[in-house]
Amino acid sequence: MDYYGNPVTTLIEELARLPGIGRKTAQRLAFHIIGMPEDEVNALSVALVQARREVRYCRQCCTLTDSEICPICSDPSRDRGSIMVVEDSRDMAAYEKTKQYNGLYHILHGVISPLGGVGPGDLKIKELLERLRSDEVHEIILATNPTVEGETTAMYLSKLIKPLGIKVTRIANGVPVGGDLEYTDEVTLARALEGRVPL
Amino acid sequence: MDYYGNPVTTLIEELARLPGIGRKTAQRLAFHIIGMPEDEVNALSVALVQARREVRYCRQCCTLTDSEICPICSDPSRDRGSIMVVEDSRDMAAYEKTKQYNGLYHILHGVISPLGGVGPGDLKIKELLERLRSDEVHEIILATNPTVEGETTAMYLSKLIKPLGIKVTRIANGVPVGGDLEYTDEVTLARALEGRVPL
Repeated sequence: MDYYGNPVTTLIEELARLPGIGRKTAQRLAFHIIGMPEDEVNALSVALVQARREVRYCRQCCTLTDSEICPICSDPSRDRGSIMVVEDSRDMAAYEKTKQYNGLYHILHGVISPLGGVGPGDLKIKELLERLRSDEVHEIILATNPTVEGETTAMYLSKLIKPLGIKVTRIANGVPVGGDLEYTDEVTLARALEGRVPL
Repeated sequence: MDYYGNPVTTLIEELARLPGIGRKTAQRLAFHIIGMPEDEVNALSVALVQARREVRYCRQCCTLTDSEICPICSDPSRDRGSIMVVEDSRDMAAYEKTKQYNGLYHILHGVISPLGGVGPGDLKIKELLERLRSDEVHEIILATNPTVEGETTAMYLSKLIKPLGIKVTRIANGVPVGGDLEYTDEVTLARALEGRVPL
């Protein structure tokens, strides 16, 4: 039943379609929004439409950006010799925050997932291969997530790129810093042992 | 730093201002929104502005509605002799779902909270007293939440209304149905004992 009147109910329904927003949360948000100053609501409303309309992919690395070439790809101080391949722009942002990497990125926008109906053709792999045509790139760092799909995608890309004579590496598996051996799964523990480094 | 380009970052910031939406959730939502069909984004955007602009309070019970008088207040089959006083429209919706109450409501839009800077003047109490001027009403059911503020507000209203010669009742405290005595706090257990009913 429509307890709150049409516009509020419509807003609740629209909000509840977002991922991770259940009916109760949508209700709570809608009630907050009704109590917000009108110009803040307008700002949110405009931000939604603009983000959807103006967003595009960097012509080189395929990250989300509002310019033709993203700030990282156009930064002359970045090392053009290495490309880190990640699943999405958030993973790129995560690595940027470390300030430990000075190369370029390539965003796949997904991983190979036969169950999810995502094949290599749905990812930005063609665009990656295109970038390898120049002689500049000497290392590809595969930084897809350490999940089954991420590993599969990394293996797939490795088989594709190695024959081109380019060095292909994969980020290390191991015990996370600050983690607890007792609560770390066996596969991670085994990988951490395998990948042990001399001190 | 602005990793995603201006429109996306703006959207993330706007979303992160909503209650219970942290930065990570805002990011996740923004990325989902960018991938949504454009007409769905537009629908959400319009719903936001419309809900904020078109919402108003029922002239009688002060619930959120899009008409002058809400559907409950204008329903001739409801018992006009009793008014249930609740904190907000969601509480009204919760009681409506039980289908056990056939009277009218009055929405306070808050509770008395000295710490939160909310006094009786900030609530729809004047509007409630206005409704009691007619002889129709014979019972006021106080259904504010069983919190310190809710109890305070109920006591305040009771002292205000009783002198008018109208019966004032409070919803019962007790063990929730399906609950577990072991995990119920002592105050609730004591109230449940106090309020025991003959079988």
